[in-house]
Amino acid sequence: MTGSPLLNELIEALRCLPGVGSKSAQRMAFHLLERDRERGLRLAGALEEALRRVGHCTRCRNFSETPVCALCASTSRDRHVLCVVESAADLTAIEQATGYRGQYFVLLGRLSPLDGLGPQELGLSLLAERLAEGEIEEMIIATNPTVEGEATAHYLAELARAGGVRPTRLAHGVPLGGELEYVDRGTLAHAFGSRQLLG
Amino acid sequence: MTGSPLLNELIEALRCLPGVGSKSAQRMAFHLLERDRERGLRLAGALEEALRRVGHCTRCRNFSETPVCALCASTSRDRHVLCVVESAADLTAIEQATGYRGQYFVLLGRLSPLDGLGPQELGLSLLAERLAEGEIEEMIIATNPTVEGEATAHYLAELARAGGVRPTRLAHGVPLGGELEYVDRGTLAHAFGSRQLLG
Repeated sequence: MTGSPLLNELIEALRCLPGVGSKSAQRMAFHLLERDRERGLRLAGALEEALRRVGHCTRCRNFSETPVCALCASTSRDRHVLCVVESAADLTAIEQATGYRGQYFVLLGRLSPLDGLGPQELGLSLLAERLAEGEIEEMIIATNPTVEGEATAHYLAELARAGGVRPTRLAHGVPLGGELEYVDRGTLAHAFGSRQLLG
Repeated sequence: MTGSPLLNELIEALRCLPGVGSKSAQRMAFHLLERDRERGLRLAGALEEALRRVGHCTRCRNFSETPVCALCASTSRDRHVLCVVESAADLTAIEQATGYRGQYFVLLGRLSPLDGLGPQELGLSLLAERLAEGEIEEMIIATNPTVEGEATAHYLAELARAGGVRPTRLAHGVPLGGELEYVDRGTLAHAFGSRQLLG
């Protein structure tokens, strides 16, 4: 399609990126070839390195190229609070938005028996061992507020209580900057019911 | 930011792609790591290969990993028509949209003295040699309808006439499916002036 088989292959390969269709892939390939070969080659190297070497932390299941990730190994983080998230992306969102300085545990999914995701797949025995160490006092359950995420949260709360740990859940309500008119009914009803006393 | 330095590097490296900010880069990296390591590695290989090996065709200046590109080498394409475009992306657009089966010449830019782009940089001596071969009868000038593209078209038309070749230019007018109300004034005036007799 471009007269260069290697270029055609590159355009096709770029489509493995989420949100990249044939038009964007073409634009990316031309951009790199015309203007940015050096950074493109650096990207090739970074892809190769990360995809071959990044595995999961044996302690929190977050992405890591070392057996224990930097967050788990850090001595400056609070060892008494553990935040449980569904994915590494959720972990990153919390790290970037909040001032949280505790530990994490990444489920790499949510309970979903139909997809074959049970307690085993989510590493819950590893989580139970972690609780059994006795250091953790609070488990912040930050699974998504979806049906499956809520079911997972319920299960995790039981696990925490069984281990003598206080389970907490992120607050639900109207998003900051949102307009009541456009907030979905479920959220609005929840926010209304959980209204808080001012001052 | 993610607890894995290699992953952070990958996210940073992905930002060399046009239109990819930090949020998309993060999404792409997580997607590849979680779901598509194999295709990601294939992308790394394709990037490396294309960026190291793809150069320019010595005949038409299109991207090519061989001295003469597949389009120039093809025996099934009309050797009497030459379409001159600014970029490889324009060439691809014409290949995909039209039934054109002639030859191409890629300027890799447009006349722009302020940016240091003169006849030399656009390979116009190579183009003149090509015309001097005597095979080409029509030169379709498909530079962009911008000020610089028009100036380039004017220059190219002179070159064609000097070489005894008929210069033609893509038609301007109202885009198909466009609404007159929203077409810019210049285009509308041009389309009005160039109105065609029906049937």
